[in-house]
Amino acid sequence: MQDVLIRTLEKVELRQPILVEGLPGVGNVGKLAADYLRDKLPAKPLATIYSKFFPPQVYVGENGVIRLVSNDLAYWKAPAGAAHDLLVLGGDYQGISPEGQYEITERVLDYCAQLGVKQVYTLAGFAQGRAVEEPKVLGAATTPALVESLKKVGVVFSRNDPGGGLIGASGLFLGLGRLFGMEGVCLMGETSGYFVDPHSAGAVLRILAKVLKIEIDLTALEEKAREIDKIAQRIHDAEQRTSEPSSGSPGTPREDLGYIG
Amino acid sequence: MQDVLIRTLEKVELRQPILVEGLPGVGNVGKLAADYLRDKLPAKPLATIYSKFFPPQVYVGENGVIRLVSNDLAYWKAPAGAAHDLLVLGGDYQGISPEGQYEITERVLDYCAQLGVKQVYTLAGFAQGRAVEEPKVLGAATTPALVESLKKVGVVFSRNDPGGGLIGASGLFLGLGRLFGMEGVCLMGETSGYFVDPHSAGAVLRILAKVLKIEIDLTALEEKAREIDKIAQRIHDAEQRTSEPSSGSPGTPREDLGYIG
Amino acid sequence: MQDVLIRTLEKVELRQPILVEGLPGVGNVGKLAADYLRDKLPAKPLATIYSKFFPPQVYVGENGVIRLVSNDLAYWKAPAGAAHDLLVLGGDYQGISPEGQYEITERVLDYCAQLGVKQVYTLAGFAQGRAVEEPKVLGAATTPALVESLKKVGVVFSRNDPGGGLIGASGLFLGLGRLFGMEGVCLMGETSGYFVDPHSAGAVLRILAKVLKIEIDLTALEEKAREIDKIAQRIHDAEQRTSEPSSGSPGTPREDLGYIG
Amino acid sequence: MQDVLIRTLEKVELRQPILVEGLPGVGNVGKLAADYLRDKLPAKPLATIYSKFFPPQVYVGENGVIRLVSNDLAYWKAPAGAAHDLLVLGGDYQGISPEGQYEITERVLDYCAQLGVKQVYTLAGFAQGRAVEEPKVLGAATTPALVESLKKVGVVFSRNDPGGGLIGASGLFLGLGRLFGMEGVCLMGETSGYFVDPHSAGAVLRILAKVLKIEIDLTALEEKAREIDKIAQRIHDAEQRTSEPSSGSPGTPREDLGYIG
Repeated sequence: MQDVLIRTLEKVELRQPILVEGLPGVGNVGKLAADYLRDKLPAKPLATIYSKFFPPQVYVGENGVIRLVSNDLAYWKAPAGAAHDLLVLGGDYQGISPEGQYEITERVLDYCAQLGVKQVYTLAGFAQGRAVEEPKVLGAATTPALVESLKKVGVVFSRNDPGGGLIGASGLFLGLGRLFGMEGVCLMGETSGYFVDPHSAGAVLRILAKVLKIEIDLTALEEKAREIDKIAQRIHDAEQRTSEPSSGSPGTPREDLGYIG
Repeated sequence: MQDVLIRTLEKVELRQPILVEGLPGVGNVGKLAADYLRDKLPAKPLATIYSKFFPPQVYVGENGVIRLVSNDLAYWKAPAGAAHDLLVLGGDYQGISPEGQYEITERVLDYCAQLGVKQVYTLAGFAQGRAVEEPKVLGAATTPALVESLKKVGVVFSRNDPGGGLIGASGLFLGLGRLFGMEGVCLMGETSGYFVDPHSAGAVLRILAKVLKIEIDLTALEEKAREIDKIAQRIHDAEQRTSEPSSGSPGTPREDLGYIG
Repeated sequence: MQDVLIRTLEKVELRQPILVEGLPGVGNVGKLAADYLRDKLPAKPLATIYSKFFPPQVYVGENGVIRLVSNDLAYWKAPAGAAHDLLVLGGDYQGISPEGQYEITERVLDYCAQLGVKQVYTLAGFAQGRAVEEPKVLGAATTPALVESLKKVGVVFSRNDPGGGLIGASGLFLGLGRLFGMEGVCLMGETSGYFVDPHSAGAVLRILAKVLKIEIDLTALEEKAREIDKIAQRIHDAEQRTSEPSSGSPGTPREDLGYIG
Repeated sequence: MQDVLIRTLEKVELRQPILVEGLPGVGNVGKLAADYLRDKLPAKPLATIYSKFFPPQVYVGENGVIRLVSNDLAYWKAPAGAAHDLLVLGGDYQGISPEGQYEITERVLDYCAQLGVKQVYTLAGFAQGRAVEEPKVLGAATTPALVESLKKVGVVFSRNDPGGGLIGASGLFLGLGRLFGMEGVCLMGETSGYFVDPHSAGAVLRILAKVLKIEIDLTALEEKAREIDKIAQRIHDAEQRTSEPSSGSPGTPREDLGYIG
């Protein structure tokens, strides 16, 4: 079979579309952001991507109907007058081998190039390994000019982070994108790395909205973040109680557990 | 060499054949069911499938003669008047890498499509991690209509099971089958997951017989199930004795071991 | 690059050649036997086989000159009147992945088929996991007739061994060989599985000589076996002494260590 | 996508160029040497090599700009009258799978063959597993004549080292190079194997300069080696103090830690 199979669901003409990528990864930040963006725009299904570099797996929906794991492209037509339509890439998995990552990314970029894509935004999480109260958004880009323009909207460029570079789709879409003549930006929301983090996804989308000059209503995402906060708080409280000294003295706040929230 | 090599043993014309797949997996339920079905129909050898995605292994028969590991297609011509002939796919292994799973499944589906297959039934086990006295048969399908028709013959559709979807051939034959325009159903017999389970294979075949409107004499399979039950009972009894207190008091039934049977 | 690259060193015409394969494996029995056979016939270099499915490695000879790891085919022209010339396949490695095993075996068989090969003998060790004083030679073959003829020269066919079949080149050359219309035999010398075993290789060659009706002077191989026996005996004796009780009583023979020899 | 993608940055005509390879490996000796050589000659960028056999990774520079991991060829035009121009191959990674190693090496050699390369020098470290005060340079070559000529400039050929041969790019460029009709030499600087070792890289470059009859100013490399020595010395001293007996007696030199320097 073809290594990567892209099924087009609808033929569309897009105005200088920009590709926004967000796949599963650290804190699921990228996937949360891309899926939320797709739902809120809302973007419409454009193409489904199957590959032997994904796991040999189907999901079963609540109605008992199966679907093969995939990545998916959706499109959004910007209002008249806007310069760029959007393509949003999300999905169940990144390629499960290094070679698979390259093959899938290259094929999707090739497909997007034919749709006129010249700019790529990749969304990801950046694991800090500690609690992150107010997630900053770190950046990396394909040109110094893009770096400068991102600094102006609050993206942080750190001399040391990410030290080992970017591994996986968010980096590869930029690195291989350059070979297609595409410019690109990676927006990385700080996150602890221990939890799915809608809070960090929100921070990333806030920056993306500024850069793309679009409106994204983040209410539902913030609500989801609060729910997760509450669950974490309950776990925190439960741990507090069990770790209290047997003398029954009131538990002192354990700051070292604060990161759970 | 070709990734997947299909050797046709006999040229046949089949009437709208339905593919039934059962390969090694959880409790070997799928393989037991498919092999039993093939022997009881009986189905005749149609094609042998070799692949570099199987282990590099030959089996040695009791007569000292070797054969290369393979999957195998057999066919059964239904009585005059019946709408569908059957194809039964069994074998020694599933592909041993994710890519191999995709490659083999796609090639076999392509081969079956040329034989006119438009419906696929995959047989599998569903590991409950606990004793299963009366195995239910869980289902998943490619369309809501199929789900409804399966419910009518007693197939259970659970909102939560299987939570992680289906991994391996039983899922992939449905997922990739859709790309060939095939409809499909997965029948999963509940099983503990710890033993080869002919009992669960029988439950799956009972449903399959209803759906396909064929007769399958399950006597031999039930006999096999009883034998395994007896062996398990003997292990159980032996464990009872060794775990008896030294005082010689009669052992109390250990319900927690009951699942062995 | 090509997956498997076969460089022919000399163009030869061979009379109905028989392929004898012996590559590294259990007790190195197959490789020891094939290398010894090649040296004693002596067989001349015919072709070198390189592959990306071998490790990315070169060996450095005592003279400082490197060579890339490979498999190697050598040929031997039988005396006038004999029916069959021989091809001997040896080498540094078997393919290091299952797919590599298939690819290399298939390409070598294809090459040999063009040279007129219709019979394959594969040489291997069979690990007994215990000392083997007088190694028997177990067999497996592609046809019942071959099995019968091997029994007559002392090859043992066991109903239970090898239970899991044959894994690796020795099995695959037979299994894939059948797809090339080749008949074949695997000769497996019993061995402990813990040591390189020239003794077992000798047993295999003794049978092979009978079957192929050739003379092989085994003196040097037996000498090598005796040397290894002596080393093992010395280790044995040393262990005896260190395990003696401190009372200084003479050590009793430790039968459980006897297998080292 | 292509397995290996070579992007030519400049079209050049080279005089019988010699390829010098140095990629990451033991003590990073090869990479340190090749990178230093490239900078000091200085050599100019000729081609960038991307591959799906590298990790799916981009590096982020201090300026926030990303680049895809790669290998890189640079060229140096020798002064008029010299027989050979140079090509220097460096990079971020070796291929991360055995097959990848073969594929990348073969493609680069093919590219270099088209540029007229007939000689290859590979630079590497040789791990001694102990402190190496004055690193010798071990050698291996494709012909006895090359071995003799290298002995004359001080390269050490040891009957036993490297016992297991050479694994990875430094060996493969020679082994596959022979299939392209190229002669070649591997220069291996002794190193402990525990640290990045510019000292050993210097020893390798000193030999290379003699062989290629070029001048390489090693001042900066020696400076770097001294810095690493100082850091190691400080670690050494710190360990001394913490391991001093509590009586406060002056610490005796711990010779067993001397290798850190």
